[in-house]
Amino acid sequence: MATVPLIEYDHATPEVRAVFDDIMRTRKVDHVNNFWKALANHPATLKRTWESVCEVMQAGALDPLTKELIYVAVSVTNGCGYCTHSHTAAAVAKGMTPAQHQELLAVIGMANETNALVNGLRVPVDEAFLK
Amino acid sequence: MATVPLIEYDHATPEVRAVFDDIMRTRKVDHVNNFWKALANHPATLKRTWESVCEVMQAGALDPLTKELIYVAVSVTNGCGYCTHSHTAAAVAKGMTPAQHQELLAVIGMANETNALVNGLRVPVDEAFLK
Amino acid sequence: MATVPLIEYDHATPEVRAVFDDIMRTRKVDHVNNFWKALANHPATLKRTWESVCEVMQAGALDPLTKELIYVAVSVTNGCGYCTHSHTAAAVAKGMTPAQHQELLAVIGMANETNALVNGLRVPVDEAFLK
Amino acid sequence: MATVPLIEYDHATPEVRAVFDDIMRTRKVDHVNNFWKALANHPATLKRTWESVCEVMQAGALDPLTKELIYVAVSVTNGCGYCTHSHTAAAVAKGMTPAQHQELLAVIGMANETNALVNGLRVPVDEAFLK
Amino acid sequence: MATVPLIEYDHATPEVRAVFDDIMRTRKVDHVNNFWKALANHPATLKRTWESVCEVMQAGALDPLTKELIYVAVSVTNGCGYCTHSHTAAAVAKGMTPAQHQELLAVIGMANETNALVNGLRVPVDEAFLK
Amino acid sequence: MATVPLIEYDHATPEVRAVFDDIMRTRKVDHVNNFWKALANHPATLKRTWESVCEVMQAGALDPLTKELIYVAVSVTNGCGYCTHSHTAAAVAKGMTPAQHQELLAVIGMANETNALVNGLRVPVDEAFLK
Repeated sequence: MATVPLIEYDHATPEVRAVFDDIMRTRKVDHVNNFWKALANHPATLKRTWESVCEVMQAGALDPLTKELIYVAVSVTNGCGYCTHSHTAAAVAKGMTPAQHQELLAVIGMANETNALVNGLRVPVDEAFLK
Repeated sequence: MATVPLIEYDHATPEVRAVFDDIMRTRKVDHVNNFWKALANHPATLKRTWESVCEVMQAGALDPLTKELIYVAVSVTNGCGYCTHSHTAAAVAKGMTPAQHQELLAVIGMANETNALVNGLRVPVDEAFLK
Repeated sequence: MATVPLIEYDHATPEVRAVFDDIMRTRKVDHVNNFWKALANHPATLKRTWESVCEVMQAGALDPLTKELIYVAVSVTNGCGYCTHSHTAAAVAKGMTPAQHQELLAVIGMANETNALVNGLRVPVDEAFLK
Repeated sequence: MATVPLIEYDHATPEVRAVFDDIMRTRKVDHVNNFWKALANHPATLKRTWESVCEVMQAGALDPLTKELIYVAVSVTNGCGYCTHSHTAAAVAKGMTPAQHQELLAVIGMANETNALVNGLRVPVDEAFLK
Repeated sequence: MATVPLIEYDHATPEVRAVFDDIMRTRKVDHVNNFWKALANHPATLKRTWESVCEVMQAGALDPLTKELIYVAVSVTNGCGYCTHSHTAAAVAKGMTPAQHQELLAVIGMANETNALVNGLRVPVDEAFLK
Repeated sequence: MATVPLIEYDHATPEVRAVFDDIMRTRKVDHVNNFWKALANHPATLKRTWESVCEVMQAGALDPLTKELIYVAVSVTNGCGYCTHSHTAAAVAKGMTPAQHQELLAVIGMANETNALVNGLRVPVDEAFLK
């Protein structure tokens, strides 16, 4: 159903397997999601994406759960179904409670509403924001 | 430059002034942003939007700063310039550090990239996400 | 500031002038907007777009003002500033009142909010909608 | 398949049932759509959203069918499948004819095309639109 | 499952059949895709869309495969599943190799990421770009 | 006007200067664009983004100009003004002719129109596309 075949571990090249192994070791799971199997058609993109995700999503000035909530907000706003499912699941795995999930969605909804109101009103940016 | 006149306090109806007063009191400032002045052309929408924002953005299972980061993520993804400026400023006012800002943007960028990859690959949702 | 030069009537080819003349005659104005001047760099696209707009926006099962409101709704949702300005002005020219404008924006805002909520909740389509 | 359980009336709290009852009474139906069942996980959002929809979608300067057409335009532009299905059905329930539906889609398509042309050409806003 | 019935050749009007015949003749196939069957509910839109697609997608300063890659880029960015499937298939039919497909997706992903970064940073346009 | 200060070479850290030097050397120019100056607030994102862009945009199965056209298509569809300006300029630098530019925009416009029509019609994916 994808526009590319999903590459399973058993049929993967050593280069792809190395990334799959790193994903499974890092996440302490025994399989990789369909996203990675699809990306595996382009080993360079698979490797670069995985390394970038690791760099960006690691604990830093923001904690991993907060980063995952932000990821969900982007995915929902883009209407990406797969991404919303997978990052909602990731947020739950990182400790998101049902109450946090509901507030996350309420903020996303409100932001999309006021974004549209601003776009329709063509509100000029306040001087104070440009200092 | 907006598609509507901006309503200043001095020319506002009592109904609009009541909302403006509440905004200034709640935020401990002596003016309201252009967004509210533009919305004031429709007092019902002004009142409903302000009350909804208060309800949604209050401290709850998620803290106010986290909610503001989510708001920025939506605004950036929608490409809303005014919203990005105003909610970035609001996040700073609620304590967002430059390091947090930079990580926020990095996550937003990464999420938009993988959303697009998923959309292009048409990745089928993993069974595990649908349970 | 555009990515192409704006073609003024005096420097336009006969092919472009014919479209400009038709726009001015149809709209009973003595100039064309920047959109048409920019499109004039590609006479084939200019002609096709003008003819398509005429066909689509003419009175039919929906009246011209309603069609203009729909045009604004799309333009706002896409965050297209030029389009929002020009089609809001067109709607006013076709009789949109300030009250209608405000209600239009309120509906656009609400729709964007519930679209986001649906996308975040991944609501399955009701059987009743698929009959 | 949703990211939350759908709350059925029989398992709903009194607070949720009150909103469900109001929806069914207002719409003269004997059930609520999946959207409301999903929102019911967060009673505050359920109540606020229902009340806001009632306020925004009621007859005013624009009639209810026109408002529904605008709602469809936003939903289609955002690519929200559920929303497009449910608001197309709502428009039909409010009297939208097949001919109106077809013209609605033609306008939405045309608006999305010219929005993209404007975005690519970076057309500067005409002075006349900013007065 | 569509919001309109799909019009099959055997039940189509002569006006619709003429377009279907032209599509099949031009593409050297013995059927038309669901998109055209759905559009056939509005013969004017069917005819205009088919003629516009023919004009826009013909070989010119850009070759047909390059145009198809651009079409996929737009469809993926909009998150349109049907469009991504159909234009990916069209690109393959026009000679897109798996390696080209993978690089196409990598560029689309990267562009979406940097678009978001730019939107979040609100980068002012360089003078050099405006000359 | 950006949400961050633009980092000039003279005030940049050695880490940032190394990337700036590489950009100028690679592109054979004596300055870097505002995008890179804004990204320089987060050296890790600056470095990762520059390296990713180099990897993705290099000649491969697709030539650099074609990749730039795809980049423009995404940027226009997202409505990103800065990105549209900078990547249109980059495409010109790589040899895009005015005729190619005009055809590029025509395809982007058409794709956005048919994407919207598909989304409104909710066209089911043809079996043939899923094989």
